[in-house]
Amino acid sequence: MTGYGKYFPHSCKVYVTGSQPDIRVPQREIELAHTVNPDGSENFNEPFRVYDTSGPCTDGVDGPLPARRAAWIAERGNKTQLECAREGLITPEMEFAAVRENVKPAFVRDEIAAGRAIIPLNRCHPETEPMVIGRKFRTKVNANIGNSAIQSSIGEELEKMRWAILWGADTVMDLSTGKDIHETREAILRHCPTPVGTVPLYQALQKVAGDATNLSWNVYRETLIEQAEQGVDYFTIHAGVLQRHIPLANKRLMGIVSRGGSIMAQWMQSKNEESFLYTHFAEICEIVRDYDIAFSLGDGLRPGCLADANDDAQFGELETLGKLTQIAWKHGCQTMIEGPGHVPLHLVKENMDRQLADCFEAPFYTLGPLVTDLALGYDHLASAIGGANIAWHGCAMLCYVTPKEHLGLPNKKDVREGVVAHKIAAHAADLAKGIPGARDRDDAISKARFEFRWEDQFNLCFDPERARRFRGQSMPPGEPFETEQRYCSMCGEHFCSMRINHEIRTS
Amino acid sequence: MTGYGKYFPHSCKVYVTGSQPDIRVPQREIELAHTVNPDGSENFNEPFRVYDTSGPCTDGVDGPLPARRAAWIAERGNKTQLECAREGLITPEMEFAAVRENVKPAFVRDEIAAGRAIIPLNRCHPETEPMVIGRKFRTKVNANIGNSAIQSSIGEELEKMRWAILWGADTVMDLSTGKDIHETREAILRHCPTPVGTVPLYQALQKVAGDATNLSWNVYRETLIEQAEQGVDYFTIHAGVLQRHIPLANKRLMGIVSRGGSIMAQWMQSKNEESFLYTHFAEICEIVRDYDIAFSLGDGLRPGCLADANDDAQFGELETLGKLTQIAWKHGCQTMIEGPGHVPLHLVKENMDRQLADCFEAPFYTLGPLVTDLALGYDHLASAIGGANIAWHGCAMLCYVTPKEHLGLPNKKDVREGVVAHKIAAHAADLAKGIPGARDRDDAISKARFEFRWEDQFNLCFDPERARRFRGQSMPPGEPFETEQRYCSMCGEHFCSMRINHEIRTS
Repeated sequence: MTGYGKYFPHSCKVYVTGSQPDIRVPQREIELAHTVNPDGSENFNEPFRVYDTSGPCTDGVDGPLPARRAAWIAERGNKTQLECAREGLITPEMEFAAVRENVKPAFVRDEIAAGRAIIPLNRCHPETEPMVIGRKFRTKVNANIGNSAIQSSIGEELEKMRWAILWGADTVMDLSTGKDIHETREAILRHCPTPVGTVPLYQALQKVAGDATNLSWNVYRETLIEQAEQGVDYFTIHAGVLQRHIPLANKRLMGIVSRGGSIMAQWMQSKNEESFLYTHFAEICEIVRDYDIAFSLGDGLRPGCLADANDDAQFGELETLGKLTQIAWKHGCQTMIEGPGHVPLHLVKENMDRQLADCFEAPFYTLGPLVTDLALGYDHLASAIGGANIAWHGCAMLCYVTPKEHLGLPNKKDVREGVVAHKIAAHAADLAKGIPGARDRDDAISKARFEFRWEDQFNLCFDPERARRFRGQSMPPGEPFETEQRYCSMCGEHFCSMRINHEIRTS
Repeated sequence: MTGYGKYFPHSCKVYVTGSQPDIRVPQREIELAHTVNPDGSENFNEPFRVYDTSGPCTDGVDGPLPARRAAWIAERGNKTQLECAREGLITPEMEFAAVRENVKPAFVRDEIAAGRAIIPLNRCHPETEPMVIGRKFRTKVNANIGNSAIQSSIGEELEKMRWAILWGADTVMDLSTGKDIHETREAILRHCPTPVGTVPLYQALQKVAGDATNLSWNVYRETLIEQAEQGVDYFTIHAGVLQRHIPLANKRLMGIVSRGGSIMAQWMQSKNEESFLYTHFAEICEIVRDYDIAFSLGDGLRPGCLADANDDAQFGELETLGKLTQIAWKHGCQTMIEGPGHVPLHLVKENMDRQLADCFEAPFYTLGPLVTDLALGYDHLASAIGGANIAWHGCAMLCYVTPKEHLGLPNKKDVREGVVAHKIAAHAADLAKGIPGARDRDDAISKARFEFRWEDQFNLCFDPERARRFRGQSMPPGEPFETEQRYCSMCGEHFCSMRINHEIRTS
C-alpha cells in the first residue's frame, strides 16, 4: 500500500524533527475545509495532526523496513532503556516517544526510571518507531495476529499486521501456533514499525510436538534466544503460575483459560516440580536484559468467566508477578504486567488498584476485561466497555479483542473492528484521565459537525471510509451527499437541530 | 415471521401463568444439550429461560395483535397505574411485570407508588405486554424507529419494529418526521407488543409545514389527543427548555442538538414568550393522566459534544424537569426523565447522581451517553461504553444508538447492531448492580464453553445466528464444526486451554 489510500483521504504523512536530524517523528496531518460564515466569508481551519502508527508503509515502502534506529543502538552500547533512564540519560528513543506524546523528553525518562513506563524495543529490531507505554501517556492498543494449526499463511499474517497498524494498533503480538512459526515471525519483524510481542512458550511447545510434558528449560531457553535474536520487543512470560495456584484454579468454573498458564500447569502437574519459568527467572532476566527486551509478565490465571473474576488464583498470581517485577527491575529489565480477562464492571477498578499496589506501578496491559460472558460475536464491544473503564483507572495498554473471540481466528475484517473498537475505548479513557490535548480532536469534529463540514467529520474520525460509506448508504441514490447538504437522512431538513441552531444564533 | 426462525434455534416460547388465567407472561426457553462426563455418562441440563420481548409475532401472529389487556383496562376504570399503586392496589399489569422480573408483585407496586418505576401503557394500547422501567429492575433498552422526509415506508418501519423486539428491545419509539406520520404510527401501535413512545412535537411541526414559528398550544394539544387516542404509551415532552436557558445554550460549541429542544427554542425566540409546553404543563398532565400515558420529560438541552457536557444549560433544564416531575406526580401521571447525550466517562456518574437528586428518583432514560465525539460509524459502541456505566449507577433504560448515528437513518442491519450492543451494555450494568439472577446466564454459557457444548454457547448468547456464522467462517470448509470439535481455529487442538484443563482435572 502506498500512502493512506482510500481509508484516510485528505491525510498526508508529516514528520516532526527532534533535537537531532535522525529523530523524525511521524504524524498524520488531516486537511480541513474552510468554515463558511453566515455572511459568506470564510475562516481557515488549521490542518489537524494525529498520532500515527502506520510506519513507512504509508510512505510507500513495500518491502523490508529501513533500520532507522541502528546508529542509536550502536551508540548506546549494552545498556537498557531502564538503565539509561536511571542514570539520567535521555536516549533518542525517549525523545522520539516524547515528541509523539507531546511531552518533555525528561518526563518520559523519569517515568521509565521509576518503572511506571516502558519503551519496548529489542536491539535487534532497529526498524521500529519508538513508543512509550505507561499510564501517564496516551492509552495504547495491541493487536494480536498470528496463525494457528487450522489457518496459516505468512502473507495473510503480514497483511493483518499492516492492516492493524493502519487502523492504529500501537503494538502487535505474533501469537502464531501453527506452521512456519519462525518464518512468520521473521517476516513480521522485518516489516513492522511497531514493537512486536510474542509468547515464546508457544514455539517451545511446537518444538516438543505439542506435548507439554516434554517441555524443558533447555528447549525454552533456546527458543527465547532464537526469538530475541530475531528482534522480538516484548515477551509474555507466564512465570507467576506456581504449583500452589493449581488447586485454586481447579475450583473454578472455567479453570485456566490462558494458553500459557494451562501449558505450564500441565507441565508442573506431570513433573511435580515448580515452573521452570519461575525457577529460572533470573536467567531469563539475563537474556531479556541483553537484548533490552521488555517483560510482559503473563497472567496465566486470568479469569475466563465472571464467576472466576478477582478470585484467589488470580490475585495470588498477581502478587507473584509483583515479586518477579522487582527481580526484573534489579536486572535492569523493563517490565509490564498482563491482566484480565472476564470481570464484571463493578470489580474492574479493584483489578487496577491491586495491580498498582502489588506490582509497584509497573504498567498494566489488559485483555478487555470483558464485562459479560454472553457477548459472542460482539466480544470486541464487551471488551471495549471494560477496557475503557480499566484504562480510565490507570491501565496503560489494551489488548484488542475481536468479534471472533471465543469463536475462531480473526480475519482482516475482524482486525479492523477490533482495533477501532479499542481505539475508541482507549481514547474514552484518555479523555476521562485528562491526558493533555486528548479532547482537541473531539472538539474539532464537533465544530465540523456544527458547521456541516461533512468531509471534515469523516476525515477526523477513526474510520473515515466507513463513516463516508454509511452516510452514502442512507441518502437517496444520485444525491450529492458529501459536502452539499445541511442535513442528513435521520432528520431531513425541517427537523435538523443544527440548522435550527444557526437560525437561532443569527436571528 | 413464525416462531424464532433461524435467529434463535432451539428456542421455544413458553408462558408462565400468574394469579389469574389471563396473566400469561412470555419467556423464551432455550433447550440445552447434555453434559458428557469424562467416563462417558451424561448429565441433563435444565432448559434455560430468558426474558422475552418479541410478543405474539413469535407465536405466529402476523396481523394486528389481540387486545389482551382490554378486560383489565375496563375493570380498572379511570385510574392510572400510579394512582392504583398509591392506593395499595396490585394491578394485573404490575403482576405481569413482576413475573417477568422474577420479583414479588408488591415490590413492583411499591416502586411505582414511590415514583421510582413506571409501567408505560396507554389505555388505548391494549395489545401490550406490560413491563416495568425502574432502576431496581432489569435495565431496559429502547429502539428508535420511524421515517424521515428522506426515507419513508410504512412496511419498512413495521419490519424494523419487529426486528428490534426480536433482538430484545423493551420499548420502541416511533420518531417519524416524514410522510404518513399518523398511518405509520397506527400500523406500529396495532402490531407492537411493547410500549411505544413518541415525540408529539414532531407531528405538530409537520402540521404547520415545518415552520416552528407557526406552532401553537392548540396545534400541539390536538396532536397530543390524536396520539393519545391511538394508544401511544409514553410521550417525550421537552417542557423543561425555558427562555432563560437559551443564552446558556448559545454559548456552547454545539448549541441545542435535541430536535424538540431546538424547535421550542426557535418558537420562544420568535414569540418572545415562555414555552407553551411549560405554561400549559398542567393541561398536558390532564390529557396524559386520562389515558394513563407516561411522561418522558425530554432533555432538550442535552449536550451534543463533550465540550458541552454537564454545563449550566443541561443542569438548569434538569432542575426544571424535577419541578415538572412533582407536578406530573400530583396529577397522578407516571414520569421518567430523559438524559444525555455526549459525556466523557469521568462525568457520567455526576449525571446520574444529580438526576436522582433533582428529579426525586424518577427513572432515568438516557441516550448513551457517548463517551467520545469521534466514533462516527461506531457510535453504538461509544454509547454502549457510556450506557453500561450510567446504568450501573442507576439509569433504568438505555435508548439505543446505532452505527448510523450522526450519519443517517438506520436500516434493519443497524437496528440489530444497535439493539444487541445496548442489550450487552444493559446486561453488564445489571451484573454490576447485582440484579438477582443476572449472572445465571453468564454462568450457563461459561459452563457450556468449558464443556465444548458449542450449540449451547450459540443459543445462550444474544445473537446465536451471528455466533454460529462466525465460527463457521473460521473453520476449514467441510469440517463438522458445530458440535464435534473440542477446539476452535483460534488455538487449534494442542493450544486449547480448555482441553488442557480437562486433562489437568482428570489426571
